[in-house]
Amino acid sequence: MRIAARPENAHQARLLRLLRDHGPRSRSDLGQPMELSRSKLAVELARLAELGLVEAGGLADSSGGRRSAIARLASGLRFAAVDIGATSIDVAVTDGELRVRGHLSEPCDIRQGPAAVLERAVDLLGKLRDEHAAAGRLHGAGIGVPGPVSFRDGMPVTPPIMPGWHRFPVREVVAQELGCPVLVDNDVNILALGEMHAGSAPSVDDFLLVKVGTGIGCGIVVDGGIYRGVSGSAGDIGHIRISDDGPTCACGNNGCLEAYAGGAALAREALAAARAGRSPFLAQRLASAGTLTAIDLADAAAAGDPVAVTMIREAGAHLGTVLAGLVSFFNPGLVVIAGGIAGFGHPLLAEIRSVVYRRSLPLATGNLPIVLSELAGLGGVIGAARLISDHVFSVA
Amino acid sequence: MRIAARPENAHQARLLRLLRDHGPRSRSDLGQPMELSRSKLAVELARLAELGLVEAGGLADSSGGRRSAIARLASGLRFAAVDIGATSIDVAVTDGELRVRGHLSEPCDIRQGPAAVLERAVDLLGKLRDEHAAAGRLHGAGIGVPGPVSFRDGMPVTPPIMPGWHRFPVREVVAQELGCPVLVDNDVNILALGEMHAGSAPSVDDFLLVKVGTGIGCGIVVDGGIYRGVSGSAGDIGHIRISDDGPTCACGNNGCLEAYAGGAALAREALAAARAGRSPFLAQRLASAGTLTAIDLADAAAAGDPVAVTMIREAGAHLGTVLAGLVSFFNPGLVVIAGGIAGFGHPLLAEIRSVVYRRSLPLATGNLPIVLSELAGLGGVIGAARLISDHVFSVA
Repeated sequence: MRIAARPENAHQARLLRLLRDHGPRSRSDLGQPMELSRSKLAVELARLAELGLVEAGGLADSSGGRRSAIARLASGLRFAAVDIGATSIDVAVTDGELRVRGHLSEPCDIRQGPAAVLERAVDLLGKLRDEHAAAGRLHGAGIGVPGPVSFRDGMPVTPPIMPGWHRFPVREVVAQELGCPVLVDNDVNILALGEMHAGSAPSVDDFLLVKVGTGIGCGIVVDGGIYRGVSGSAGDIGHIRISDDGPTCACGNNGCLEAYAGGAALAREALAAARAGRSPFLAQRLASAGTLTAIDLADAAAAGDPVAVTMIREAGAHLGTVLAGLVSFFNPGLVVIAGGIAGFGHPLLAEIRSVVYRRSLPLATGNLPIVLSELAGLGGVIGAARLISDHVFSVA
Repeated sequence: MRIAARPENAHQARLLRLLRDHGPRSRSDLGQPMELSRSKLAVELARLAELGLVEAGGLADSSGGRRSAIARLASGLRFAAVDIGATSIDVAVTDGELRVRGHLSEPCDIRQGPAAVLERAVDLLGKLRDEHAAAGRLHGAGIGVPGPVSFRDGMPVTPPIMPGWHRFPVREVVAQELGCPVLVDNDVNILALGEMHAGSAPSVDDFLLVKVGTGIGCGIVVDGGIYRGVSGSAGDIGHIRISDDGPTCACGNNGCLEAYAGGAALAREALAAARAGRSPFLAQRLASAGTLTAIDLADAAAAGDPVAVTMIREAGAHLGTVLAGLVSFFNPGLVVIAGGIAGFGHPLLAEIRSVVYRRSLPLATGNLPIVLSELAGLGGVIGAARLISDHVFSVA
């Protein structure tokens, strides 16, 4: 493995993250947040330039005195990002400021196992690297997978929907293939990092990112960092109980949130409505496509189908019930809803808000925005790039 | 206000906390965890001795070589601790290692308002100070109150059961009276700090302390520190919904945890059972005492009263239902149950454990102890002393 350049001290690490998060800045603008003297700042920037991590970006406009030199991240910095879902794979290459330079997305069945899926990921990254990375050089890669991950070991641990991935050394295998540092985390934490960098949450220290896809999970951000819990399973909210006599869940219990509002549960409900003739829209879609997904439900609601609208509202109410409890407990500054269900739009959001604002304590909801993610399909890859950039931009 | 001595740098602060948490230690034993050279360690200890915070404690037993000098916190260090409940007040004076040197407890109605209650607290502290503090010197005071607190401002904010306390400047008033630094927090966070110092949790970084008294609240510890949320209301779990058609709660909603398992709800249930003749034990107690509390329920269960045992088991099941969700979400390393309800003992604990282990994810409960607090009535004052010692033992 090639050793990538890393900062040598905490000042340098902080400078790199400032330039990543705020873009090119003049030396006079950097001095204040860094609390460094002009000469000390110049020393650190010079050293970062020698390491190939920072470069000069011309002179700032003058505000009267001498024009200050602009520093920026090296234009050749490239991070790779891989966001593996249950049925899709997204790969991207970003620059140092985590702007997506190239992005590829294709269907991919996670059940093919790690060898086939990771080989495909590396192939796709290879294409992007040749096109977007100078001399084919990557400075690091972040990977998200749809299941529990031992972050320390860089491998999935007993992931329910990922047969063959248990304790597969994803980090080591990909690091060897790419020749750069690699970190692996679960898909929900990756999405939370994406929101932190480019979404609704850049200035919120404590927030929740709820992803409703096939399953349901929650990324927890405490003081600007991912909270993973003592065994890495924090945020696993899909099996929180709503009712003892609710539908049976894949986990064996009754009345779990996921059995009411997960994408798989909604697809089943949509299928039942289509077959029972309760929704002409869904019946027609089923006849033409042969199956139904949560996306068909969103289309039906958008077309004004009343059965679909009711199903979406009920899913929102169930999500709201669980979120109300978590808001009382965690007192976050923001809740972001992401995943396929975010495509349900306003009817879903209105219902979630209604339940949370009614059932949580006023002190916890007084200034609490609840929003849909605005990152569409890119939240995962931006978050994966953020994950590895935090590592590369820290003292070795 | 007298200015108390504080450490001058992070090394000194860390030394003081090490000596507080682990007791007197030889210089050779301190060098390793502090990662300081022998000469640098000697400089910092000498400076702390000049500040009156540390003193020499003789020589350690030899393990072959030269005998190493023992350092310990100054024997004259004294912290004051006040734990104000809805119906009681506890005050204590501790030494630097937070050992309780003197403790007074008496009934006290929080509804008398801040002037009367705080005057009584200062009076009681005055007695303990004269007896246990050299030259009457206190180095700081921690205060816990039974309601939401703006930690930054040192005052309660819209506390439901504390009429007259809203935005009363508790910290400033007591600091002026005592002439030392003061910090104020809510009773549940104080209990969590007590567990961290002297209870079941000294080596657990992420844990939950659930207090069931008149109301129900939860102290959240993340990475060894109290997590308060963005508006200071984190841990307010008493109004998490168990069922939409449950009993009406004081908050106006139906089916809140507190309406099922809080001390006030249990006392009402006990009263109903006594009056309906369902429990001879409780009926007799009601006749003799004129009223019933959760303590009577514990006595009834201990005497084998089947109605009381069933009520306690049901309370445990409801607490377990909410805790199961919080365990899935937060993935703590430990859950401690405290407050009056901890007096219900094993029947309560067995029921809580049963529900949590059944309903939370295996990954989150694999190594999760759920225990009753062993600090009895002292958890609050030890936690209050810990709170202010963290402040005094930090860089000014």
